[in-house]
Amino acid sequence: MRKKTTIGLIQIRVSENRKKNLENSIRKIKEAANKKAKIICLPELFLSPYFCQTENHSKFKLAEKIPGPITSIYSNLAKKLSIILIISLFEKKTSGFYHNTSIVIDEKGKIISKYRKMHIPDDPGYYEKFYFTPGDLGFKSINTKHGKIGSLVCWDQWFPEAARLTALKGAEILFYPTAIGWHPKEKKKFGNSQLDAWITMQKSHAIANGVFVAAINRVGLEKVRNRKIQFWGNSMIIDPNGNIVKQTKSNKEETLICDIDFKKVETARQHWPFLRDRRIDYYKGLLKNPEDA
Amino acid sequence: MRKKTTIGLIQIRVSENRKKNLENSIRKIKEAANKKAKIICLPELFLSPYFCQTENHSKFKLAEKIPGPITSIYSNLAKKLSIILIISLFEKKTSGFYHNTSIVIDEKGKIISKYRKMHIPDDPGYYEKFYFTPGDLGFKSINTKHGKIGSLVCWDQWFPEAARLTALKGAEILFYPTAIGWHPKEKKKFGNSQLDAWITMQKSHAIANGVFVAAINRVGLEKVRNRKIQFWGNSMIIDPNGNIVKQTKSNKEETLICDIDFKKVETARQHWPFLRDRRIDYYKGLLKNPEDA
Repeated sequence: MRKKTTIGLIQIRVSENRKKNLENSIRKIKEAANKKAKIICLPELFLSPYFCQTENHSKFKLAEKIPGPITSIYSNLAKKLSIILIISLFEKKTSGFYHNTSIVIDEKGKIISKYRKMHIPDDPGYYEKFYFTPGDLGFKSINTKHGKIGSLVCWDQWFPEAARLTALKGAEILFYPTAIGWHPKEKKKFGNSQLDAWITMQKSHAIANGVFVAAINRVGLEKVRNRKIQFWGNSMIIDPNGNIVKQTKSNKEETLICDIDFKKVETARQHWPFLRDRRIDYYKGLLKNPEDA
Repeated sequence: MRKKTTIGLIQIRVSENRKKNLENSIRKIKEAANKKAKIICLPELFLSPYFCQTENHSKFKLAEKIPGPITSIYSNLAKKLSIILIISLFEKKTSGFYHNTSIVIDEKGKIISKYRKMHIPDDPGYYEKFYFTPGDLGFKSINTKHGKIGSLVCWDQWFPEAARLTALKGAEILFYPTAIGWHPKEKKKFGNSQLDAWITMQKSHAIANGVFVAAINRVGLEKVRNRKIQFWGNSMIIDPNGNIVKQTKSNKEETLICDIDFKKVETARQHWPFLRDRRIDYYKGLLKNPEDA
């Protein structure tokens, strides 16, 4: 059992130039690996501006096959650097089926886990239900050379069920590739409350499950026609007691390198033994919607 | 449908004198009602010092029948003041079966809901598994004249499942009668982190479910032989966006009176539509423990 590892979270700004985004990610992955990061994660859909700001059929052409040319690039990189890579991609599964997918590539360059975002948002400026079929693979944990990890994606971070299920499957670090930000017009009135709610939810998953949580967001103002999102950064690593160990600022590219001591998972679970006391005999209502509950 | 209400949370210090605790609670309930509170909640097991600090068979004599002489007192009071009362009691169900129970009494003095604490802790100084059989009534929401409410109890507040199930049943305010504090020896090293984790979890329930959360704790240092707990107060009301609306200090008796606008529940759920997107088709693992999941 791996006792310690080092993770790297790469908070980036995304441009309209896909090739530049790819090159930027590769450069920063190499830098993080040079700083001894063994599990490296990038934000949600980091190869493109956040195209879900509008419903635009032409954007479906951005979707990738998995495995495919893009995953080959990252597989080769993971192998070369001998690291675990978590990569978020717009996946074309088959005709008419597109997913918001996160893959885990191991240090030999093999894709060892694929997760398709289970909870799909649809909010003004976040029109994801137009693009993505809800995930059909369930929740995933994967035992890597550098630790047991699970990847969820963005909107999943608001659902205690997603964190719980991934932790119950064994993950000791939950990674959340993310693309979340402020609508500039709302920022003054609701900005602090929105950011605080987002941080609160990630902390709650760490506490409730006794796991590390790593949330990795993009930064920068992105405009699509009259839509704008100011991505709020604040990528962070939270320990199993809910303490934020490292956190980026909201306005610039930054890579967090953070040592993880897996002993803290078991220590937290002995001192806050919530998993012990779950009432699985009375949780059936969780499988229902309100009118049925 | 009730659109607004006012709630009262009574943070108290508990003495060895049961009669005084009873009288203190009655006096403070009357004061809160005079300040227009319509739903009033007291801390967990407020009639006694927190006897679970040790395992002591003689403490079983503190248990009450429900209904019984003590509930009659509060029923009469609720009727007289025309309020909803949430009262936490050590319940004797039948020979050998004791529960940590919370009841809701309506404005006519009738007990309209009974909840038996579902998640029972057992930690040094919190030996509840010795006293209390885990609850056998499931999670509850009750439609009162002054709003749809649910009561959970203390340790339940660490379980997203408990909050979710109570909210799915319709509760728009979750009340948590509580008895939680610091072990004085740990306070310097872990105190801030423990309190922050506790607050984080209550906020997360409000956010994830789009409900109000009201946590009501006791204060004061209580000693039982060589055991000590410094109850940390910090009773609070949180709105459906996760903002703390009112909060007490950690070191003195204090009653919070807080107006509740139920419209905020629906507004939060329209703006953060998490309930819409739950994946009940993939949540079966929540009914399992890790080795089975």
